[in-house]
Formats: sequence, C-alpha cells, structure tokens
Amino acid sequence: MHAVEIIIKKRDGGELSREEIRTFIEGFTRGEIPDYQAAAWAMAVMLRGMTARETLELTLALAESGEQLDLRGVVPLAVDKHSTGGVGDKTTLVVEPLVAALGLAMGKISGRGLGYSGGTLDKMESIPGYRVALTTEEFLGQLRRVGLVLSGQSVDLAPADGKLYALRDVTGTVPSIPLIASSVMCKKLAGGAQVIVLDVKCGVGAFMPTVEEAGRLARLMVRIGSQAGRTMAALISDMNQPLGNAVGNALEVAEAIETLSGGGPGDFREHCLHVAAHLVLQAGRAGSLRQAKSEAERALEGGAALAKFRALVEAQGGDVRCVDEPERLPGAKVVRDVPSPGSGWVKWVDAREVGETVISLGGGRAKKGDSIDHSVGIVVHKKVGDRVAKGERLFTVHAATPEGAERAEARVLAAHRISRSSVEPLPLFYRTIRG
Amino acid sequence: MHAVEIIIKKRDGGELSREEIRTFIEGFTRGEIPDYQAAAWAMAVMLRGMTARETLELTLALAESGEQLDLRGVVPLAVDKHSTGGVGDKTTLVVEPLVAALGLAMGKISGRGLGYSGGTLDKMESIPGYRVALTTEEFLGQLRRVGLVLSGQSVDLAPADGKLYALRDVTGTVPSIPLIASSVMCKKLAGGAQVIVLDVKCGVGAFMPTVEEAGRLARLMVRIGSQAGRTMAALISDMNQPLGNAVGNALEVAEAIETLSGGGPGDFREHCLHVAAHLVLQAGRAGSLRQAKSEAERALEGGAALAKFRALVEAQGGDVRCVDEPERLPGAKVVRDVPSPGSGWVKWVDAREVGETVISLGGGRAKKGDSIDHSVGIVVHKKVGDRVAKGERLFTVHAATPEGAERAEARVLAAHRISRSSVEPLPLFYRTIRG
Repeated sequence: MHAVEIIIKKRDGGELSREEIRTFIEGFTRGEIPDYQAAAWAMAVMLRGMTARETLELTLALAESGEQLDLRGVVPLAVDKHSTGGVGDKTTLVVEPLVAALGLAMGKISGRGLGYSGGTLDKMESIPGYRVALTTEEFLGQLRRVGLVLSGQSVDLAPADGKLYALRDVTGTVPSIPLIASSVMCKKLAGGAQVIVLDVKCGVGAFMPTVEEAGRLARLMVRIGSQAGRTMAALISDMNQPLGNAVGNALEVAEAIETLSGGGPGDFREHCLHVAAHLVLQAGRAGSLRQAKSEAERALEGGAALAKFRALVEAQGGDVRCVDEPERLPGAKVVRDVPSPGSGWVKWVDAREVGETVISLGGGRAKKGDSIDHSVGIVVHKKVGDRVAKGERLFTVHAATPEGAERAEARVLAAHRISRSSVEPLPLFYRTIRG
Repeated sequence: MHAVEIIIKKRDGGELSREEIRTFIEGFTRGEIPDYQAAAWAMAVMLRGMTARETLELTLALAESGEQLDLRGVVPLAVDKHSTGGVGDKTTLVVEPLVAALGLAMGKISGRGLGYSGGTLDKMESIPGYRVALTTEEFLGQLRRVGLVLSGQSVDLAPADGKLYALRDVTGTVPSIPLIASSVMCKKLAGGAQVIVLDVKCGVGAFMPTVEEAGRLARLMVRIGSQAGRTMAALISDMNQPLGNAVGNALEVAEAIETLSGGGPGDFREHCLHVAAHLVLQAGRAGSLRQAKSEAERALEGGAALAKFRALVEAQGGDVRCVDEPERLPGAKVVRDVPSPGSGWVKWVDAREVGETVISLGGGRAKKGDSIDHSVGIVVHKKVGDRVAKGERLFTVHAATPEGAERAEARVLAAHRISRSSVEPLPLFYRTIRG
C-alpha cells in the first residue's frame, strides 16, 4: 500500500484501516513518507474527517511511535489531568498537589505556552531554581517518593505527534477534531496514567468556540481513552473570560498558592475542587461526586495540598521560600491599577484579548522559542456578573515599563464591557462526559 | 499574507484573490513556499474547488512563471490543438500537417506518454532520427520556414506547472478540474497560439469518465482561454474504445500516414477531419463547419497534408523513407492475430485495458523515465458496433516475445465483449463548446 493510495482513499472520504494508518504514521516517523505527503493527508483528514475507529487507531499509532511509560509498577494508581488550554488556567498547580494529598499519584508532563494560551511549565519556572527537565529515572523516582511530578517531556513521548503537529501548524491543518483528539490522547496514553480527567475549554479564549464543538472533542477523547483501557472523564468548562483573577506566570503561581492556602478567587477554587473531585471519583476513592468534593475541600483547608505543592517545588529544586512567602516571586517594575470607566455589571471580559495583552507585555510567546518575562501580567478584579462602581479597580497591569503598562491598560479596557442592568455570572462548567 | 493564511482561506472554502494566488505560485516557484505547504494547498483546492476567476488567475500565474512565446511576429496566425489524452490518439500526427497545408501554422509542443495514455513525442520517435529536442531558435525558425513543428519543450514553459504537477502526482491531488484546467491552459497560453481547439476525451480510457465532467473541464478551459484573449473551442470526444485501430507507437505512425494518404480507419479519419475543421473555422478561414470540413478533406485527398507531414519529419531530422514506405518503421518480432471466439456484434473494447496491455508489451511507461519499445502494440480490427464472425480476426498483437504476445492476447480478449444482437456504434463526438 503506497502513501499516495492512502491519501487518495482519505481524500475520497474512505475509512482508513488500522494497517493503512500504521503504515502512514510509521513511514512518516521514519522519514520515508515525506512532509508533502503527510501535509496532503492531514488536509484530507481535516476536510473529510475521521471515524472514531480511525481516530483511535491514529492515536495508538502516534502513542506507539516512541517510548511508553508504564506507571503501574511505580505507584498503586497513577492519575492525570489535561486541560486543552486557556487564559489564567493554573488549575494543575492546585489540583495536582490536592489529589496527591489524597493519595492519588500524578506524574504530570506539561508543555510551554504558545499564543494567548499559557503553559504550566512557564508558570512553574517563575519559581527560582525549579527544574522542568528531569531524566526518566528522576521522574519515576520522584513519583514513587513524593507522589507527584510536574515536568517537561523526559522521554521521547509520541515523537510522531511532535513531528505531525509541527507540520500541521504550518499547513493550516490544526483545527481538526480527530487530529486534536489524537494529538492530546497519544501523549496521555504514552504517559501511563490509568485514570485521566480532561478539562475541555470552550469559548473565545479556547480552541473550541462552542459547547457543542468542545463536547464533540471531549466525547471523542473519552472514547479513545476508554477503548485504550483507561478510566476517563471529561469536563466542558468555560473559557470566555479568564479563569480566576491572575493572568501571567508569577501572578498565577501566587494565586495558586493562595488557593492552596484556603483562599483564592471563588471561581478558581470551585473549578479546582470540581476537577479534583472528578479525579477522586474516577479513581474509585469516593462513592459520589459530593463525597469526593468534600474530601478535596478537606485537603485544601487542612493544608495537606499546600504541603504537597511545597514538596513538589522542593523535589524539583525550586526555592520553597517562594511558596511560604509568595511576595518573593518575581515582581513587575510597573504595577498600575485600571479604574472602571463606568458603573454597572461586568458583561464581558474577553479571555483571548487578555491573553494576547499578556503576550504583548512579554509574558507569553508569539512564536516558539521566544523568551518570556515571568513577572508581568494582568489581574482581572471583576468578572462577568460582578457589580462595579465608576473608579473602582477593574484590572491591575503588571508591566516592565510605563509605556507597556499604558498600552496594556488601553487594551484590557477595550476587552471588557459593562452593562447598566444586572448580568448573570458565566457558568464554570457546562457538561460532564464519562467513559 | 503568509502561505499558511492562504491555505487556511482555501481550506475554509474562501475565494482566493489574484494577489493571494500570485503570492502562492511565485513563492512556490522560487522555492520559498515549501512542497508541504503547496501539497496542503493543492488538497484544499481539490476538495474545496476554485471559482472560474480563481482558475483563470492560477492559469495566468503558472503561465507567467517562465518564458512565454509570442508567435505573432513569426507567422500570420498560429493555431494549436490539445488532446487530454487517450488510447490510440494519434490525431495530432494528421491534424497538424492537415491544417498546416491549409496555411495555419502550428508550433506544437507535446509530451511523452505516461500510464495507459500514449504520448505524441514517443510516437514520432518511432521514426529513426526524428529529433524532439529543439532550441527556441530552431523551433521558431522551422515554424516560420515550414509552418509546423512537433517537439518537446524547448524553453522552460510554465515551470511552476511542472513543479506543481510533479507534487500533485505524489499527493493524490491530480483529478481536480480547476487544477487540470490550469495545468493544460497555462502551457497553451505560454505556447503563444492565438487559436486553440481542445479535444477533451471522456470515457473509460480518459481522465474524465463522463460527458458531464468532460464538459465541465472543457467549459472551464474555453473560458480561461477566451478571457486570456485566445479564440477557443473544445470538442468532447469518446474514449471508451481506442481511437482508430492502431495502439502502439510505430503502429500509430503507420496508421497516421495511411490516413494522410487518403485511407485509414473511417472513425479516425472522421475524427481528424472534425478537429481540423474546427481549427479552420475558429481561425476564420471558412464560413461554416461544413465548408471547413470540405477544405480539410481536399487537403487530405490531394496529398498536401501528407507532403506537410513529410516536410515536418525532414525538418526535424527523421528518416523520410519511413513516410514513403511505412513498412520501414520498427516492426515487432512476433505478430499474432487474435481470432474472435464468437459471432455477433462488438459491444465493448475497453480503451484503458488495451492501453495497459500495450504498456505490458513494453510500448508505454508505467513510470517516468521507463524506456519504451516503439515496435509493439495492438491493432483493434473490430470496433463497437462492428459485426464479427467466429474465427474472424479481432485483434493483432505486435510483441517482442511469444510469451508477451500470449499474455497480451488473453488480456485483450478479456477486454472485449460480443453481443448476439446488433449494437450501435459509439459516437465520435458528444458536444462542441465555443468561446
């Protein structure tokens, strides 16, 4: 079976067999199928779609293109979470130590931020000394000893996915639900967790604009994970406005520590408790979501979750004084409050625009390899549904220069709307999908 | 405007602007837009289509990617014909000298055969000494002096098309009507003829299986040529069974010479007269198709067309004794008649299967660069609608070996059907489309 025949079959809307998908992905990984054939194939997949069966086979072929971790011999039960990315999404920083405090080991492999969506590794690197590059031995040893790891890829997990994603990025073939689902799930499967909870964002600050599209992606990923023998759940959550208040690396770490200490913004705390509760429930450690949630609350209130976060930072060489005294985290030179130009109820705070503003402040990457400033960011004081009086603080801009702060101020003001009549708050979650 | 944005616009079904198409084709020609982006773009074009305006812009961008001949200063009126390719299609060998004999200069740039569809250059190379590689000076000088040329590309006509076609061939993006139309027409426009008649084949031995699809392609090409200021016509002709009787390089040259001498198979003679008449009519040298056809018949009967063919062969260094005595053309070692296994009327002679059989005999190319045996081929004695008696000669196989002849005999027998009741002959032409 030649590569071109596989392309033609997909071009004409056919369903590719397991063998055809493996031939194509293995040939592409080995460099025998050139980029131009993979690009034409990806466009055909993008426009013709893939069945759930094809997507499962693609995911498995990508997962099997490199090393696959088996964590069953390392910890009794390994769990994992994955967010499809958003603005102000520091959920992992709270949920991971929280569930670890409840005895659920999480060896999380995260990525860096690209575009308006932030990256967990960048956030953790706000803590001086924190090492994201671990060897496999360090990764497994720390998981066994401490019960949690938060690092970059130590082994070459799903190298075919890395190669395919880089190609999709430059050929207009990113926004395909089967291709996104297989790209997320191949790394989750290769990562070795038995229980996986997906946090699929929808809204203007997410890849999937609508609940329906996010639901399609979520159902497909849950189905793939279940068919691969993992215990799966997916939550569809809102990403129209930023999550919590802080957007920007060090600011988000501080907000996570505040939340782990029993405080933090109400929406973010609730979001973390909900995700953690689903992990606890799926792991079979609670009889109901309500029970799982009260266990999670206890771990948060009792300080166990914060202690786990501190242990994580310590294990990976980070300065634990930043956990104890978050004011030690890198601070921006210019900090400026943005007062509300009017009175009423906040109707809209555009997550994407806030995310793009943080990039323009230097806190994110417009393209791969850009260096970032961990200290800058935006704090969103008023969220959709909140009442605000004229002159009251709407945002705080943390910038490197006064000029940068001024531009960011204008931009975030343009990204929000105030209504004269009362506005309902946005929901945190829309749907839950179980395997 | 980045390449990826142009790909995305087409992927999402948008209409590309003149500037976007030029940016893409110029970037691709210069190697600045890599093959993988062009492949994704071609697949998006294939699946999303192109408007007539986009196809015109693409054709012009391809035509302008290299040198463009202007024949207006060389001959009073340059005409051209183009066939979309078929089995037994030696029309150019008759039509070109025929219209040249009527004073219409044709500087024809042809290609080699690939797959079951034969190539005019391969046919002409059956004549010992015939040179298909001419310099631009030789091409233009011979056109002025002799009034006809039949060669390969002397200049780099539409190099972007050559590059794009090679990529389409390996990425499953060949059968797209806008891409086929622009690929044919860019070379015709760059070739410099003012009057162009297209012979668009349809049927099992053609690229377009149905009259409707051939019609869509033909209308699009006529529209492009007209908008580019050329006088256009397109004929939709049948390619379910081979054209004429002979299939195979030297056999086809011999049949062309026979036809130029006033004989030849009736269907092939009629086909050539029809194409030639349309050229004469479009060139304004006749008041009606009927008048154009009787002029063409006169050129055939009076020997003027054959004299022009002889002059062409002589001008390009071919052995003119082959024209005077076609038995001097390369002959196959094994010549074997295939008798009819039954009596009745021929219902079907599969053009594609006959073409593939000639490849298997060594007379065509399965892939580019394969060498070919000019002497081998198949003569189809009975065409659809012909009456045949059991034992009467159906085919003659011309092969290099007895084993090859035996395999070819089995294959052509399997490619034909005989009916017990009478069968209507297939039409030669289905439609005419004028600019």
